[in-house]
Amino acid sequence: MKFELKTTDPGSKARAGKITTDHGEILTPIFMPVGTAGTVKGVHQRELKDDIHAQIILGNTYHLYLRPGLDIIQKAGGLHGFNGWDKPLLTDSGGYQVFSLKEMRKITEEGAKFSSHIDGSKHMFSPEYVMDIQRIIGADIIMAFDECTPYPCDYGYAENSMHMTHRWLKRCIKRFDETEPIYDHTQSLFPIVQGSVYPDLRKQSAEFIAEQNREGNAIGGLSVGEPAEDMYAMLEVVNDILPKEKPRYLMGVGTPENILEGIALGTDMFDCVMPTRNARNGMLFTTEGIINIRNKKWEDDFSPIDPNLDCYSSKFYTKAYLKHLIKCKEMLGSQIASVHNLAFYIWLVEQAREHILAGDFATWKPKAIKQFMTRL
Amino acid sequence: MKFELKTTDPGSKARAGKITTDHGEILTPIFMPVGTAGTVKGVHQRELKDDIHAQIILGNTYHLYLRPGLDIIQKAGGLHGFNGWDKPLLTDSGGYQVFSLKEMRKITEEGAKFSSHIDGSKHMFSPEYVMDIQRIIGADIIMAFDECTPYPCDYGYAENSMHMTHRWLKRCIKRFDETEPIYDHTQSLFPIVQGSVYPDLRKQSAEFIAEQNREGNAIGGLSVGEPAEDMYAMLEVVNDILPKEKPRYLMGVGTPENILEGIALGTDMFDCVMPTRNARNGMLFTTEGIINIRNKKWEDDFSPIDPNLDCYSSKFYTKAYLKHLIKCKEMLGSQIASVHNLAFYIWLVEQAREHILAGDFATWKPKAIKQFMTRL
Repeated sequence: MKFELKTTDPGSKARAGKITTDHGEILTPIFMPVGTAGTVKGVHQRELKDDIHAQIILGNTYHLYLRPGLDIIQKAGGLHGFNGWDKPLLTDSGGYQVFSLKEMRKITEEGAKFSSHIDGSKHMFSPEYVMDIQRIIGADIIMAFDECTPYPCDYGYAENSMHMTHRWLKRCIKRFDETEPIYDHTQSLFPIVQGSVYPDLRKQSAEFIAEQNREGNAIGGLSVGEPAEDMYAMLEVVNDILPKEKPRYLMGVGTPENILEGIALGTDMFDCVMPTRNARNGMLFTTEGIINIRNKKWEDDFSPIDPNLDCYSSKFYTKAYLKHLIKCKEMLGSQIASVHNLAFYIWLVEQAREHILAGDFATWKPKAIKQFMTRL
Repeated sequence: MKFELKTTDPGSKARAGKITTDHGEILTPIFMPVGTAGTVKGVHQRELKDDIHAQIILGNTYHLYLRPGLDIIQKAGGLHGFNGWDKPLLTDSGGYQVFSLKEMRKITEEGAKFSSHIDGSKHMFSPEYVMDIQRIIGADIIMAFDECTPYPCDYGYAENSMHMTHRWLKRCIKRFDETEPIYDHTQSLFPIVQGSVYPDLRKQSAEFIAEQNREGNAIGGLSVGEPAEDMYAMLEVVNDILPKEKPRYLMGVGTPENILEGIALGTDMFDCVMPTRNARNGMLFTTEGIINIRNKKWEDDFSPIDPNLDCYSSKFYTKAYLKHLIKCKEMLGSQIASVHNLAFYIWLVEQAREHILAGDFATWKPKAIKQFMTRL
């Protein structure tokens, strides 16, 4: 994996860059659609390419490990072979899902024991095993096993947890460096900064992560319920420390506003279930602002959902038709809204990139946030 | 609407023809995907055209009347304008859905009173009103308001019901002929033969229907639970009477076998929810036979679902991937299986047509039934 930093915006810390993987290039800043169980919910693979213009998608290690399971994925030639997506892939470590299981999991120094949410079967994720699993899934970018602290989180817990995440990281790195990719492409391991909303812990964690000198770095444990200002404050601390010449990935973020602010603070990669989850509930992000398609005002609006996007679902279907489908709980409603919202998110980061390259990102950003966050 | 009969198979009563409507041509025999509430469940409009190669789709009057309602549909310029499908459309009369409401409806000579399954609101469908509704929906082919008798049905009930259906038909024809299309295309009204499984009633009904001299004729009240042999026997009686120079539409049928037998008995048009409903449950119809994708044997079968179809979903996705999606109840599983099954059904009637044109339909049919009904 290679990262080229093309430009830094003169009025902010926003960067335009390019990541090159064995499965192709990723222009940054980038948003990565979430494909939990090997599928972006409601979206065909060719729609990801031709309508959404996705450059990289995510898979969730926890879900893929349980279903279809490692044996099937390995026989398929990894996740790329299994779901037919031939562009870059990133997998999370499974930690976030395991910790979300609450009373169904137990964390020790060794790792995390948990019961499957599907059949209650018992499993154990250790840092080493999570590396082995992600070797089998075969994503281009894989994540270290960390503990994502909840919010709020007291200082003592956050500090202990951060140190454990660091110790787990050393074990991840050791295992990763001792093993080889299973398939015919290289893999890169990204470590994850933790430290909750405590600036001194975030600083300490970012320094530790930076020292590991991996090909990219991630920031976890944010967008878990804390005020957006706290998230931005932590990003500022962390991005000042993480090396400029490597991509920075803010995990699980967020709204269009969060993403543009994250970019302004020097972040390059984002992922979030918001565009697809909200789509299924009828909330649309458009180039004109936010639409709740359930509102009566859209029932006889026969204009396209969003004519400004190069996306069949956004241009072909009308707001009135989509409102009808969502109201009737028709599958096609979730499909159209999901493809559209993802097309908007990718368009958003493409726009951000163009303004960074043009040198006017800092003046464009507040206007863009105002426009895209307006409720229509 | 125009119907040209091209060829009749020398070894059966199978026919190849062409229907011409203001929205384009329909080559017969044809299968029509069912788009209940203005959407074929899980299928994008462009997939209907480019992958499934559908030539005409159905809408359900009952569902569209309730949601989005006539006001919205009329403002949209009819169903074509509302859902963006610019090829031929057919709507049923709503009768079948209303009669399925059982204790929530009451049938009188005047029509059918019913309570909405959505909010319990009270409504009344009369033959005249159903014509008015279908004028507003604006399908190219619209259906008379009939009573679809259940199975089993005693002779007395079937006879009385048939006569009421005939009286209702006269009222439908009167209203239809006194009114004009609302939009810029013509509409054709098809009457429906009833008479349950009683040959003399079917004969009487077919004669009455034929006398009305409409542009096409339909056969209702079959595939409601009776043995397939009874259905074929009724078709034989009816198709001998319905005029050769007009298309014959067998409503709500059926399996690939039912369709090929129906074609052999001189039927030209079919519709059924089976391909999409069964798809959502993991039952696939393929050019090699029937697959229950939930079976363990498919979990590591990385061959395409059906490489013989000119359909992205059939060719791009593997059986193992589809099995995983259906098992996980992922929306994309229902989507892929629905598009695939419909592509198979359209391919099936296209194959039938080619064999009719080649004059070997009668010898091809038993082999085709054997192959397509084999459980793999």
